[in-house]
Amino acid sequence: MTRLITAAAAQLGPIQKHEGRDVAVGRMVRLLERAHQRGAQVVVFPELALTTFFPRWYHEDLDEADGWYETELPSPATQPLFDAIRRYGLTVYLGYAEIAFEPDETGIVRKRRFNTSVVIAPSGEIVLKYRKVHLPGHAEFATHRKVQHLEKRYFEIGNLGFPVKRAPVGDVDVNVGMMICNDRRWPESWRVLGLQQVELVMLGYNTPSMNQENRGFEAHHLRVFHSQLSIQSGCYQNATFAVAVAKSGTEDGHEMLGHSIIVNPQGEIMAQATTWDDELVVADCNLDLCELGRSTVFNFGLHRRIEAYGRITAQTGSEAPQVWTPSSASL
Amino acid sequence: MTRLITAAAAQLGPIQKHEGRDVAVGRMVRLLERAHQRGAQVVVFPELALTTFFPRWYHEDLDEADGWYETELPSPATQPLFDAIRRYGLTVYLGYAEIAFEPDETGIVRKRRFNTSVVIAPSGEIVLKYRKVHLPGHAEFATHRKVQHLEKRYFEIGNLGFPVKRAPVGDVDVNVGMMICNDRRWPESWRVLGLQQVELVMLGYNTPSMNQENRGFEAHHLRVFHSQLSIQSGCYQNATFAVAVAKSGTEDGHEMLGHSIIVNPQGEIMAQATTWDDELVVADCNLDLCELGRSTVFNFGLHRRIEAYGRITAQTGSEAPQVWTPSSASL
Repeated sequence: MTRLITAAAAQLGPIQKHEGRDVAVGRMVRLLERAHQRGAQVVVFPELALTTFFPRWYHEDLDEADGWYETELPSPATQPLFDAIRRYGLTVYLGYAEIAFEPDETGIVRKRRFNTSVVIAPSGEIVLKYRKVHLPGHAEFATHRKVQHLEKRYFEIGNLGFPVKRAPVGDVDVNVGMMICNDRRWPESWRVLGLQQVELVMLGYNTPSMNQENRGFEAHHLRVFHSQLSIQSGCYQNATFAVAVAKSGTEDGHEMLGHSIIVNPQGEIMAQATTWDDELVVADCNLDLCELGRSTVFNFGLHRRIEAYGRITAQTGSEAPQVWTPSSASL
Repeated sequence: MTRLITAAAAQLGPIQKHEGRDVAVGRMVRLLERAHQRGAQVVVFPELALTTFFPRWYHEDLDEADGWYETELPSPATQPLFDAIRRYGLTVYLGYAEIAFEPDETGIVRKRRFNTSVVIAPSGEIVLKYRKVHLPGHAEFATHRKVQHLEKRYFEIGNLGFPVKRAPVGDVDVNVGMMICNDRRWPESWRVLGLQQVELVMLGYNTPSMNQENRGFEAHHLRVFHSQLSIQSGCYQNATFAVAVAKSGTEDGHEMLGHSIIVNPQGEIMAQATTWDDELVVADCNLDLCELGRSTVFNFGLHRRIEAYGRITAQTGSEAPQVWTPSSASL
């Protein structure tokens, strides 16, 4: 029997700083309703989907930023989302800022902050939680930047790895994994999921249309290309589908790219959002397609050579290579 | 001072089974001459550039295949290449089949076979040697295939890792690294080079235009896309230039794809071959462009999280994920 699922990318337009969760949640419930009407069984929302992308705003005292975070899920504010998920029988990816009171690496329970996503089952239960590993940006106010990108200030590095679980999507059990935003640029994220036989990567993002570092070189017109290139190659090289979803448009005066996509295990774009607003794109995903790559070119067991990959986990930064010197005879 | 080099992809059309090294070497010398005329300082030839792609032909006794291999470099047959390299002051990547008499893993010296490439300095000295790590295909005659792909029969797995050296290209010292063919599809190859600050990846390939496994799913029209996707993402994600060069056209009755490319650290194609024959494409590469990626998005030291990458070197094949079961309360 063909393992067919219908997946939806539920792109969000901007959420302004002054808009409350009720505005975002209302729009998300309408997208879930439309996803159901279009036959989708799984819906992916963006990173930090419930508020504006607050890491562009600086707070000296972290606790002043607490209003941007969730301390429980569902909460009164997010309950309508969970009601819609149950009503329509959907599997949903939701990105949000998380405050958790849990032990740190020294064992002391404290208030911890993560950039988090969850997969929610049609029952409303949390299937899987992920906390963003590749936090971009910086921790301190950067005077040279026109716009701040304070993810390294507001979040700790994710401590749950890149987990995959086999979970229900409609009538089909699917190996689902997650990423958040910048993770998609790192082939390591994709490979760790691929090594767990992921079939559907769900990922949300908030990506500025403009390079904020003003360092020259990187053309703004390449930013969508770089996003798609990373997602398409990750899918091809790991034989997986992906649903990659933007929060887009001009938020708090700053433009973010849209172009949410659904990609197949050949790296082809199957569907793409073309507005900078709330927009749903839907595609039928035949999970049997994952099997081709997995059993031929990317049969990891047959072809990977971990003895040649040592540097990938042995060193974090790069190292300068040896300098070649011609033999004296050749001079 | 801008670190500018001029790089050439020296694509080769087919070399038929009955054609001797003199034919191939003569064509390659003409390409070196044209590269010099067009101002190139570095030239990349394909994988196994001196002969037909012989792994499509089966020999029961490996020693019967010895005629396809080189036992020394330069040899009388390849001396004209080295003469041209010295004459024009070029740095050159050459792919060839290598027979080496050297100790195996048990310490016994024996006849060993590798799919090899070298970087040759303008002096004619060998700067760096690489032996292909990701050997595709199979070791035994496969009756279900229309065309054999016996790389796992004719070559041992490369035992030199993915080395990088800083070597002269014209007046500029450049961090050069190598891959061969199928290596380019594996993000691990790119990352191991990137972790050594590679600035110029040289890679040759022989890639059939048709999927020979007849497994369905993989459309022939995607094969060039998959090649370019892998190279472009590898360049972007490691902030490096690449010169990727095909042996192309109908060889021994079997079509191979061309589309040799030069790619910049933004993942953009700067130049592309558009024939299936001997063809030279040339591009100016400003190595300062590598610095942008390396100091921002892909600042490895700041952003890589090796504690989350363990599976990449700990396991070769993939593992099935845990199955999620709903809590009894939700049923």
